[in-house]
Amino acid sequence: MRVPRSIHFVTGTRADFGKLEPLARAARDAGYSVSFFVTGMHMLPRYGLTKIEVHRMEGVGVVEFLNHREGDPQDVIFAKTVVGFSDHLRILRPDLVVVHGDRVEAMAAALVCAINYVRCAHIEGGEVSGTIDEIFRHCNTKLAACHMVSSQQSRTRVLAMGETDDSVYVIGSPELDTHRADSGVTLEAVRARYDIPFDDYGIVIMHAVTSEADFMGKQAADLFAVLAGSGRCFVVIHPNNDPGSDAIQRVIEAQPHERFRALPSMRFAHFSELLRHASAIIGNSSTGVREAPFLGVPSLDIGTRQTNRAFSPSVHHAEAADHDAIGRFLATVWGHRFPASTEFGGGNAALNFRHILDDEGFWNRPLQKNFHDLPWNREARDA
Amino acid sequence: MRVPRSIHFVTGTRADFGKLEPLARAARDAGYSVSFFVTGMHMLPRYGLTKIEVHRMEGVGVVEFLNHREGDPQDVIFAKTVVGFSDHLRILRPDLVVVHGDRVEAMAAALVCAINYVRCAHIEGGEVSGTIDEIFRHCNTKLAACHMVSSQQSRTRVLAMGETDDSVYVIGSPELDTHRADSGVTLEAVRARYDIPFDDYGIVIMHAVTSEADFMGKQAADLFAVLAGSGRCFVVIHPNNDPGSDAIQRVIEAQPHERFRALPSMRFAHFSELLRHASAIIGNSSTGVREAPFLGVPSLDIGTRQTNRAFSPSVHHAEAADHDAIGRFLATVWGHRFPASTEFGGGNAALNFRHILDDEGFWNRPLQKNFHDLPWNREARDA
Amino acid sequence: MRVPRSIHFVTGTRADFGKLEPLARAARDAGYSVSFFVTGMHMLPRYGLTKIEVHRMEGVGVVEFLNHREGDPQDVIFAKTVVGFSDHLRILRPDLVVVHGDRVEAMAAALVCAINYVRCAHIEGGEVSGTIDEIFRHCNTKLAACHMVSSQQSRTRVLAMGETDDSVYVIGSPELDTHRADSGVTLEAVRARYDIPFDDYGIVIMHAVTSEADFMGKQAADLFAVLAGSGRCFVVIHPNNDPGSDAIQRVIEAQPHERFRALPSMRFAHFSELLRHASAIIGNSSTGVREAPFLGVPSLDIGTRQTNRAFSPSVHHAEAADHDAIGRFLATVWGHRFPASTEFGGGNAALNFRHILDDEGFWNRPLQKNFHDLPWNREARDA
Amino acid sequence: MRVPRSIHFVTGTRADFGKLEPLARAARDAGYSVSFFVTGMHMLPRYGLTKIEVHRMEGVGVVEFLNHREGDPQDVIFAKTVVGFSDHLRILRPDLVVVHGDRVEAMAAALVCAINYVRCAHIEGGEVSGTIDEIFRHCNTKLAACHMVSSQQSRTRVLAMGETDDSVYVIGSPELDTHRADSGVTLEAVRARYDIPFDDYGIVIMHAVTSEADFMGKQAADLFAVLAGSGRCFVVIHPNNDPGSDAIQRVIEAQPHERFRALPSMRFAHFSELLRHASAIIGNSSTGVREAPFLGVPSLDIGTRQTNRAFSPSVHHAEAADHDAIGRFLATVWGHRFPASTEFGGGNAALNFRHILDDEGFWNRPLQKNFHDLPWNREARDA
Repeated sequence: MRVPRSIHFVTGTRADFGKLEPLARAARDAGYSVSFFVTGMHMLPRYGLTKIEVHRMEGVGVVEFLNHREGDPQDVIFAKTVVGFSDHLRILRPDLVVVHGDRVEAMAAALVCAINYVRCAHIEGGEVSGTIDEIFRHCNTKLAACHMVSSQQSRTRVLAMGETDDSVYVIGSPELDTHRADSGVTLEAVRARYDIPFDDYGIVIMHAVTSEADFMGKQAADLFAVLAGSGRCFVVIHPNNDPGSDAIQRVIEAQPHERFRALPSMRFAHFSELLRHASAIIGNSSTGVREAPFLGVPSLDIGTRQTNRAFSPSVHHAEAADHDAIGRFLATVWGHRFPASTEFGGGNAALNFRHILDDEGFWNRPLQKNFHDLPWNREARDA
Repeated sequence: MRVPRSIHFVTGTRADFGKLEPLARAARDAGYSVSFFVTGMHMLPRYGLTKIEVHRMEGVGVVEFLNHREGDPQDVIFAKTVVGFSDHLRILRPDLVVVHGDRVEAMAAALVCAINYVRCAHIEGGEVSGTIDEIFRHCNTKLAACHMVSSQQSRTRVLAMGETDDSVYVIGSPELDTHRADSGVTLEAVRARYDIPFDDYGIVIMHAVTSEADFMGKQAADLFAVLAGSGRCFVVIHPNNDPGSDAIQRVIEAQPHERFRALPSMRFAHFSELLRHASAIIGNSSTGVREAPFLGVPSLDIGTRQTNRAFSPSVHHAEAADHDAIGRFLATVWGHRFPASTEFGGGNAALNFRHILDDEGFWNRPLQKNFHDLPWNREARDA
Repeated sequence: MRVPRSIHFVTGTRADFGKLEPLARAARDAGYSVSFFVTGMHMLPRYGLTKIEVHRMEGVGVVEFLNHREGDPQDVIFAKTVVGFSDHLRILRPDLVVVHGDRVEAMAAALVCAINYVRCAHIEGGEVSGTIDEIFRHCNTKLAACHMVSSQQSRTRVLAMGETDDSVYVIGSPELDTHRADSGVTLEAVRARYDIPFDDYGIVIMHAVTSEADFMGKQAADLFAVLAGSGRCFVVIHPNNDPGSDAIQRVIEAQPHERFRALPSMRFAHFSELLRHASAIIGNSSTGVREAPFLGVPSLDIGTRQTNRAFSPSVHHAEAADHDAIGRFLATVWGHRFPASTEFGGGNAALNFRHILDDEGFWNRPLQKNFHDLPWNREARDA
Repeated sequence: MRVPRSIHFVTGTRADFGKLEPLARAARDAGYSVSFFVTGMHMLPRYGLTKIEVHRMEGVGVVEFLNHREGDPQDVIFAKTVVGFSDHLRILRPDLVVVHGDRVEAMAAALVCAINYVRCAHIEGGEVSGTIDEIFRHCNTKLAACHMVSSQQSRTRVLAMGETDDSVYVIGSPELDTHRADSGVTLEAVRARYDIPFDDYGIVIMHAVTSEADFMGKQAADLFAVLAGSGRCFVVIHPNNDPGSDAIQRVIEAQPHERFRALPSMRFAHFSELLRHASAIIGNSSTGVREAPFLGVPSLDIGTRQTNRAFSPSVHHAEAADHDAIGRFLATVWGHRFPASTEFGGGNAALNFRHILDDEGFWNRPLQKNFHDLPWNREARDA
């Protein structure tokens, strides 16, 4: 009997695990040997020790690597992850490494793969955010051997960056798979578990923008002032551990607890159920511009973090300091429902992923990459 | 009086120093405070301890950092360079960091700059080589704030990768500046210094191709067999310290010393004088496809390392195993002179560089980058 | 209710886990919160992936940290362990860290504890071996806050090194606890599990002596030549991953499989049962000079590794090259039984350990250490 | 001609360089090839960039290694120094490494030497200070191959720790050599260079005690309150970069500049001339208990840092909070002169050092160490 091919997923946050999990599940169910490299925020108690969610998944291997302590700068985290992942790679020897998105852990792993000629697939390349993380994302595109992107727009960017046509697959955004599926829990169960007393609520997720780290406290204070003044109720998810998140956290903690329920993190299925029934989602998480539109839930996108990523009619936008615009959204859009957007696929990314894996050609494509000049580039070049 | 702006150049090999030196000299002479971060091969005795060349330059600061020991894999070198450069950056606090090309040290420095919002200029982005190093080069494009490229073709690629029009400058290839200038030494002095007894000679530079590391010994053996059989004389420069270089080195050492003069490295001005008078240059160094054509010296490019980089009529090509083609070149092209090629500029890169620095707008451009979709990409995207 | 005090054990090899396990079990059963930091050889498949043994222990936490790849020099392993353990310590915040013996991992952890003012207990300090590891052991004595030693002789040495009287406890050698207890398996079960066909067998454990790394192959070849020639049967345990172990390993693999059963490692209880019934133990493991005498099994100690550590009448000694002495032992001492030695305690180290933990004074002793001059030293000093 | 033996000195602070310099000078003048590994505080601008002092020494090689950034914890600094020193050691391949004292850099280097079987001499082992640094010092004793101590008392301690009689040399304290020699500058030149306007002055050096880091600000405030109230004038040297030094620094900066001249550091010869003419030295530097007594200058030792290290009649002691005792010293002892103390040698450590190097037996002693039980230990052991 043939030993099944082994696929090693790298996860550093609850957010990327929410995207990788449907893919890993599909690969596992199709007979591949699946394991996770769990690092980053997952490992820190302060962020909810979300590694437990990975361990909860059955039939997969789990390797833990603590890659930082609180206060470590991102470049030091990067260096530690490179060494740790490279050490592990020598033991694990996977046939494929899967990294996601735009975090420092993903880029460290993709770099190690490129240097060691291990096949690496990058999920959700070609997207823009205007942050330092976007740079990591595009580096991942150049480092990875193949690309599973969420939209045609992303595919176009990945191709422009010189990747070959046959290495880029549009599979859609994988977290939509989870939202499409039955969450397996009821809203009542979710509210009970997370101690959420509200019937009518919005969700708030406000991450730090690294390049604006010094002003995040001010932005959060502005936003939450309007929210608090609205009389409405909110479930607030803690920000990621980027520079500037401390100031946001302090603002969150200062809100009245009877109307603001703050949670370090939620299990993804529970979050999906909560989002589906929310009257709005507010902040600068990609959830607001991608998942909420798929579910038809109205979004208020705040600030610059999702600039150029928000195109659905259900997405509204305001600066944190624009109290009027925020108030208007809370008054007039709150609670509406929009038609589902399919810009980022139809919730079948995992199935698409599995079809790619089952194609023998995928595994035989050479690892040495060549920059592929697009026709219009070639014209410009030769002009 | 205003404190002059400080520019910190990162150099890891004699090759990139040959390119950075004219730029650094121009910046120094224009009144900027110039320093070098010297690391990589420069620091190892085995590769000629070429850090001495950097120290020889007057009026610039020099910081040394040993980033590896013999045998360290590239990802470990990368991680050590990230930590060391980041530690140094906190002391040096330069206004601009300049990195060159496609080596692991350059990418490590560019990554640290991106994470710490230090302005970084990348020299010779947008070129292709089909090696792992090419990936590092394109990552540098995504990490750096601005780009000083050597040709229109390179500029087109950098733009395709999403960089904005105003961040990409065509300055030409800087080592041509050195070749254009008076070397300051005579051929006789060069031959005396390096103990080169030949009047008529070719130059051989054969680097390892990482993805072909296991076959480099074979390729070198093939090539040198024909060279030895030709009866001609050769100056051989040792390969860079990439995986596979040991095998090449062993082949070099086995050649008859009376007709093969092997040197770990040469001072760049001396090398320029030697190249100008050579009957041919043979191997897979970029010198053969870029500098030799500018000087009109015939090249025989071997193998895949310069694939897609060789367009001048003075450049001939052969596989290492193709004894006939190599022999034919030695017999018929040896000693010819071709018209100078200007594909990579006219030898005035340093002057162009200085003009960029003297433009106040250069220093005020924001460090936060946004992916710039080219018109044809936007069409494809919106289609 | 009071939160129980937390104790974090550091284990890097199957050998030290065999010593730490009885202590950890006793602490756990007494209500302490117990966890393990699993690193070193435990994590490498080549050495039997013995981390599984730690996971098998119920009611304790397990943290894994891969601190090296094959081929890493010991100082690099040391540095990686320092950073990794220090990162983990910030999360775990244990009340006590327990390290054992003389390996690089133990010293790295003890150093981190000393620097961060975390209470650290060192097991089996004050012993001598004449290897580089002995130096690590004595450094551990200077780094640790308290000392649980195996014999009066060791206590005397720890005191001579300046440790205070009240910080040194003689608890005996902990692995004797396991040998004293019922192993829970029968010899038949052990033989079946590990596929050992012999009724009458010796056990061979030959580790590399770092300072003799270049000669270990020769020593192993000498020893195994006599063993093979004796016609007797042997269970051979693979050496630790020290420099020189490869050469030993190659000799082991070259022996006739029908009389030499080689095993990467054994579960400790199974090994205990096997040892109890062995006709002899041969090699340079401490098992031969400490555990075998406690069980009355005859030992042949080879070479310098246990010099000054072997005092029981059941322990015989020979150089690897002394074929006669080895042959004589195999012919005349093989199969004898000796009275149990209590030089290293009576197999109740765990009970002694627990009594120490249950003394409130143990936890309140200050962490700042002062060198305690013994009376005779003070005399010499003041003379 | 024989290649001279090479000696590599490790220096991390201006303090240890003051001790190593006379030894290095003697070795250089005796024909040895001498180089320095310059790291630690030397490299940080904030501490006066004292690496320049090392570069000023003629006829020696200098290797720089930046081993930390501000804020790095000591264990991270340790790990980086281990890797960096080990990388360098592979290039330098010295015959002897010399480390001094009790700092983290010295221990990191001694550890690398022990692991790589490079001969290492430790200067000033066997001394006590009651700080975390004392632990590093005793670890150095166990790691180093030989020991050059400053007093009989220290020798006794090193022997008690198991080192062999022939590996321990009493050479005296090397900085006394500098104080004994003509400083080469006049007091007037020193005062002019460092802008010291006072004719009658005391010197203040107050370092942080790591284990009391949280209280150092209070201690400094107490001490300086009395100093300021005394109306006397003081030259104040900045503290080392240990945890707690920031608070001391802030107190120093708050003193009236017309009577308190604060300096980040001084060249050692200048400092020696200044000390020789000082009316008193105050604080917790070892200068007060060792160098001042040799020069007959009265000392006021503050707090615990020099506990058990101060035995000369010229040394007085007070707690920082004991305003009366400090005031009494300033009123009654200030300006006195005492007979020179020879407890730490006669200022000829460098000559003694050279004699050791010139003994061929020194270089042939085996590197493998064995714990040497002293006679009284053996008795206790065998009892």
